[in-house]
Amino acid sequence: MIIDCHGHYTTAPKALEHWRQRQIASLSDPASAPSAADLRISDDELRESIENNQLKKMRERGLDLTIFSPRASFMAHHVGDFGTSAAWAAICNELCHRVATLFPDHFAGAAMLPQSPGVDPRTCLPEIERCVRDYGFVAINLNPDPSGGFWREPPLSDRHWYPLYEKMVELDIPAMIHVSTSCNACFHTSGAHYLNADTTAFMQCLTGDLFQDFPTLRFVIPHGGGAVPYHWGRFRGLAQELKKPPLDHLLKNIYFDTCVYHQPGIDLLTKVIPVDNVLFASEMFGAVRGIDPETGHSFDDTRRYVDATASLSENDRRKIYEGNVRRVYPRLDTQLRARGL
Amino acid sequence: MIIDCHGHYTTAPKALEHWRQRQIASLSDPASAPSAADLRISDDELRESIENNQLKKMRERGLDLTIFSPRASFMAHHVGDFGTSAAWAAICNELCHRVATLFPDHFAGAAMLPQSPGVDPRTCLPEIERCVRDYGFVAINLNPDPSGGFWREPPLSDRHWYPLYEKMVELDIPAMIHVSTSCNACFHTSGAHYLNADTTAFMQCLTGDLFQDFPTLRFVIPHGGGAVPYHWGRFRGLAQELKKPPLDHLLKNIYFDTCVYHQPGIDLLTKVIPVDNVLFASEMFGAVRGIDPETGHSFDDTRRYVDATASLSENDRRKIYEGNVRRVYPRLDTQLRARGL
Repeated sequence: MIIDCHGHYTTAPKALEHWRQRQIASLSDPASAPSAADLRISDDELRESIENNQLKKMRERGLDLTIFSPRASFMAHHVGDFGTSAAWAAICNELCHRVATLFPDHFAGAAMLPQSPGVDPRTCLPEIERCVRDYGFVAINLNPDPSGGFWREPPLSDRHWYPLYEKMVELDIPAMIHVSTSCNACFHTSGAHYLNADTTAFMQCLTGDLFQDFPTLRFVIPHGGGAVPYHWGRFRGLAQELKKPPLDHLLKNIYFDTCVYHQPGIDLLTKVIPVDNVLFASEMFGAVRGIDPETGHSFDDTRRYVDATASLSENDRRKIYEGNVRRVYPRLDTQLRARGL
Repeated sequence: MIIDCHGHYTTAPKALEHWRQRQIASLSDPASAPSAADLRISDDELRESIENNQLKKMRERGLDLTIFSPRASFMAHHVGDFGTSAAWAAICNELCHRVATLFPDHFAGAAMLPQSPGVDPRTCLPEIERCVRDYGFVAINLNPDPSGGFWREPPLSDRHWYPLYEKMVELDIPAMIHVSTSCNACFHTSGAHYLNADTTAFMQCLTGDLFQDFPTLRFVIPHGGGAVPYHWGRFRGLAQELKKPPLDHLLKNIYFDTCVYHQPGIDLLTKVIPVDNVLFASEMFGAVRGIDPETGHSFDDTRRYVDATASLSENDRRKIYEGNVRRVYPRLDTQLRARGL
């Protein structure tokens, strides 16, 4: 089977966006804040938003299952305070849960966290518990920069984040390190901030000693690892310069997805990064939805690139498409096994 | 001949660092500020710092000439105010000028600017004039983030920067877009901030209309363009999504250097980016000075990778090693022609 480890609910019914607009408008007038019950989206609406979009493309591309989380750019953790994020995350996660319930063969949930700038990450633990234990979610998305492009939290290797890591280890779930929209005019959200965050997160792990404290912690760095595989020599050299262990060391805990939207990028990724650390993903529908005029196919149809990578064996491809994801997301593996898959 | 377009004076005599330390210490006690005349470095000291370092390696690697600018991480434009940066830039540029004068066959100067956060870039014009007209410098380094990792200036496409671009066009010099040290604990200077800045600068150019206003302006994006070539499909798709012209359009004004420290990275760079837009560079001695245990050679010996790239013809290599640099840095070309080269 083929599992896409990186999909967001970017096609949710408009009612969700309207609810959020009401919530934001209420920040200056708390009495007008919408309640969770004010959001009414029927199962039919959910079905339609998925069947005509993600599921249609998944069928066309031969993808079986997507690990599905709320829209990344809409997380916008910088908006309001913890209460704002808590209400918004609960609603977004519940919708993903309903999608996974409506299409159990095709979607498994990953949780957005109710992060808020400067707020102790410990406040996210109840939402993680709820999503994993009640909803059966298999992972979380962790935003290393809830400020939205101003980078005011400590690095991921700082003890600030440890309560989250303890919970991840306890529940045996990985985190995809994924920022949200950029409010800094210097950084285009999906053309700069996302990629910069990927590179930044990797380097934070390289300079810190996080995985000594959490040997089983697992991070998925999306968008093909930002600049990291392209500069693998630079990072190997920096690790050496900084008297750190060789990078193979980090590969016990760090995985890269295949959201790289052209063949030469996937060729490089799969050449440089050991095959056990590459997880299939497309982030469909994400930042890049068009057709590549050079190929006539969607930029984000990453299966085509993986299929066309000559250096990969069939066994390598099975790892990238399925085996690695089941290993990194053991709760998904358990669910699949329970269904005889 | 082989021209390295990206070298910094990272091996300057210690007296320079001591002068800077005195300058920084004097920020709280202006009366104790050192004067330019307090820095005394003899020609012999300069010769020794170059002959045993950069020039030795250039000879070993068969490189003829380096475009040479002050140490990037030491620019530290966030320190003090404009006066601080003006005194520091003047001293650093003068040292590069002296090196270029002592070794005219091997070094040509590129200027550090006296940038300061929040200060009008127009204040940099006299130093540019001086370096180009009096010293014969052939380029400048432009820091898009003088705050040192907090990104508080407007994007490069903003009119804020236009006075610099007018001067660059008038003098027919390119700018390498190069940040300095990161004061933001999230960003490792050479492992995250440098690469992020490269990606950020490219995306700022993609979303802006800068090159419509300055059709002859030329930017060199160092470190192989950050994440850009690896994600070339993403950027092509984003340009399409944003209703911008195809990326080829940007390639009339943007060039990438070859500071990518492993063979697969150089293979990708030269495959994805048209050969006319790739400029040879090593940033020796820069962030990564060690020996790659996988090859037995220096990580930053980028000539080996370019020589070993099978897809490049001899003519392609001549462009990367010499022709493109002479085209992008016409003042260097004029100087070389005057010497019959």
